[in-house]
Amino acid sequence: MKLLCAQSDLSANLSLVSRAVPSRPTHPVLGNVLLTCDAGTQRVSLTAFDLSLGIQTSFPAEVEDSGEITLPAKLFADIVGKLPTGTVSLDANEDCSAAISAQSSRYQIQGMSAEEFTTLPVVETGEAVYLPVAALLEGMRGSLFAASNDETKQILTGVHLSVETDSLEFAATDGHRLAVVRAAMVEDEETETGTVEPFAVTVPGRTLRELERILAAQQSSEPVALYCDRGQLALQWGDYYLTSRTLEGQYPAYNQLIPRQFDRQVTVERKLLLGALDRISVIADQKSNHIVKFSIDATNQSLGISADAQDAGSGRETIESAQISGEDIDIAFNVKYLMESLKNLTTTEIQLQMNTPTSPVVITPLGGAKATHLVMPVQVRS
Amino acid sequence: MKLLCAQSDLSANLSLVSRAVPSRPTHPVLGNVLLTCDAGTQRVSLTAFDLSLGIQTSFPAEVEDSGEITLPAKLFADIVGKLPTGTVSLDANEDCSAAISAQSSRYQIQGMSAEEFTTLPVVETGEAVYLPVAALLEGMRGSLFAASNDETKQILTGVHLSVETDSLEFAATDGHRLAVVRAAMVEDEETETGTVEPFAVTVPGRTLRELERILAAQQSSEPVALYCDRGQLALQWGDYYLTSRTLEGQYPAYNQLIPRQFDRQVTVERKLLLGALDRISVIADQKSNHIVKFSIDATNQSLGISADAQDAGSGRETIESAQISGEDIDIAFNVKYLMESLKNLTTTEIQLQMNTPTSPVVITPLGGAKATHLVMPVQVRS
Repeated sequence: MKLLCAQSDLSANLSLVSRAVPSRPTHPVLGNVLLTCDAGTQRVSLTAFDLSLGIQTSFPAEVEDSGEITLPAKLFADIVGKLPTGTVSLDANEDCSAAISAQSSRYQIQGMSAEEFTTLPVVETGEAVYLPVAALLEGMRGSLFAASNDETKQILTGVHLSVETDSLEFAATDGHRLAVVRAAMVEDEETETGTVEPFAVTVPGRTLRELERILAAQQSSEPVALYCDRGQLALQWGDYYLTSRTLEGQYPAYNQLIPRQFDRQVTVERKLLLGALDRISVIADQKSNHIVKFSIDATNQSLGISADAQDAGSGRETIESAQISGEDIDIAFNVKYLMESLKNLTTTEIQLQMNTPTSPVVITPLGGAKATHLVMPVQVRS
Repeated sequence: MKLLCAQSDLSANLSLVSRAVPSRPTHPVLGNVLLTCDAGTQRVSLTAFDLSLGIQTSFPAEVEDSGEITLPAKLFADIVGKLPTGTVSLDANEDCSAAISAQSSRYQIQGMSAEEFTTLPVVETGEAVYLPVAALLEGMRGSLFAASNDETKQILTGVHLSVETDSLEFAATDGHRLAVVRAAMVEDEETETGTVEPFAVTVPGRTLRELERILAAQQSSEPVALYCDRGQLALQWGDYYLTSRTLEGQYPAYNQLIPRQFDRQVTVERKLLLGALDRISVIADQKSNHIVKFSIDATNQSLGISADAQDAGSGRETIESAQISGEDIDIAFNVKYLMESLKNLTTTEIQLQMNTPTSPVVITPLGGAKATHLVMPVQVRS
């Protein structure tokens, strides 16, 4: 195996696939990336796989001899990342070591045979569904924050993706709050998407965070082909191929949790409310209970937000510019969930809709994306 | 106590003095800042003191009633920092709580009596020495990196400051390397400095890091008055007052460690050498021994740098553009010390001067500040 390529190509692609290398590999070869080069196509392909998430990319190079090798991802990426810009030469030896050189630098690193590398699952059974990049990004950005980071919560660590003929719905919940985003499935005219058979799948949050990172960094708007089959999914577009296990089990029937009718409604400037919550959170976070109380006063059209950290101090914020309908109500929240919702939305104004101090509250943007956030209030002794 | 002040003034000064608040106070009042306001001078003063380092600042305010109070530094700074820009009102009550308000925000935080606060040591005995800001900054920046961060090394955690009539010398060593910087003591014409009696003092690294931070952030070039007396020093300039204990004990006679004659000399472009060391450190850091070997070849005017991480890999960098005099030599270093030296210097070229593979190596900038770095080589089996 022997190739010449641009340091910037090799370095950028190594950084990209390295995201699928586990930080503590259970087997040495899992800490490696697979490098394959083909003299026929004059391309180099890099693959990393932690047995759950797999990422593969390829880029053009001057390949003298085809071949493949696996190299320790971090060491390889660190060396290549620091080499001067220009041409890098890579030479694999019989003993699975690779010689890397550029200008006056000569490195040799020990790898392992490509045969030891676990190949990515092939998931190209059935028809692909083509998802527009903009809809994917909108859906992931609007839902991922609400997924659980607690690995023991299993299916709640994922995002539930429902593919319908004309739309994509993304939903995530950690049991305390829920975010649902609906994005239009605008068909790309150059792609023969055909008719989409509706289906749903729960994708690990980590997979979508990596997908979001890659899609956000690239310029292309080529739709992403989604293949789904027996516990695995694959995404393919441009030079990228990403595979992931899917999460097993029944995703909560979240649509049933969202109230359809409300007794009370508050319309407020998003940044004004977020600023007040940010200040009051200093007090609310003192005793780690994170509780803030809303006093919604329809008569005076005034929204009071207060927190009490007992011996340490207390605080109160007042928003006079809210539009309030319905009867007065006192209701308490975990300030973190409210702030995360508000930060995730992008519109100037948002709406809070509620019924009682113990029933779910719905937060929606006014005139923006089709997002619905649901937050459970906290019960406090009055 | 009652005052009105600008949020930006209060917030900036709180951040500044908070650096002297211990992260884990051994007594509650040490976690507080002292706030004193004076209706006569219409100024507010803030003080923090961890019993070693003390910082005091003052700024103008509209003071209605004089008074003083101590408030929890972090909580106070967090709330004030998030308040909207504009006027903040601060009101202390009999029970040592303070009411803070701004626009539609009302906070109340519990403090402690000002009487419980340990006052800063007064060190104004004797004459002040006036130190120019530029000389202080140059000296601190050029020496602090070489001081030990290991608290058990006591006096080596400090910087040795020698004040002479026409210059300041800063020296720091952690036992493996040494940095000495000499800065000119240009007298400010407006200040009556008189004749300086030479003296030397060892100042804790932490004190100088804070001093550097404050001086670097401010615009003023007013010289800093230094007072020194029985284990304490005080620095005073503009609205700032900083006190610190000094480090006891005999500082190493570092000038005796610096060789005056050398058999061998290498002149090299600093960034070229730093780049090569940065790459080779990836290999040198693999087995945590950080060792790089220099092969200095006078005949070919070539500097080879290599590292070997046994089973993981190896690397070699070659610099052909160095100017080498003296006989060939192989000599090994801890790559971290070399890199820190080179990063600290600012000139285009540097000089390495040495005698044998086991005697100290001196690194000096070519045509820059008067800096001398000494690095001990590492003994390796050849």
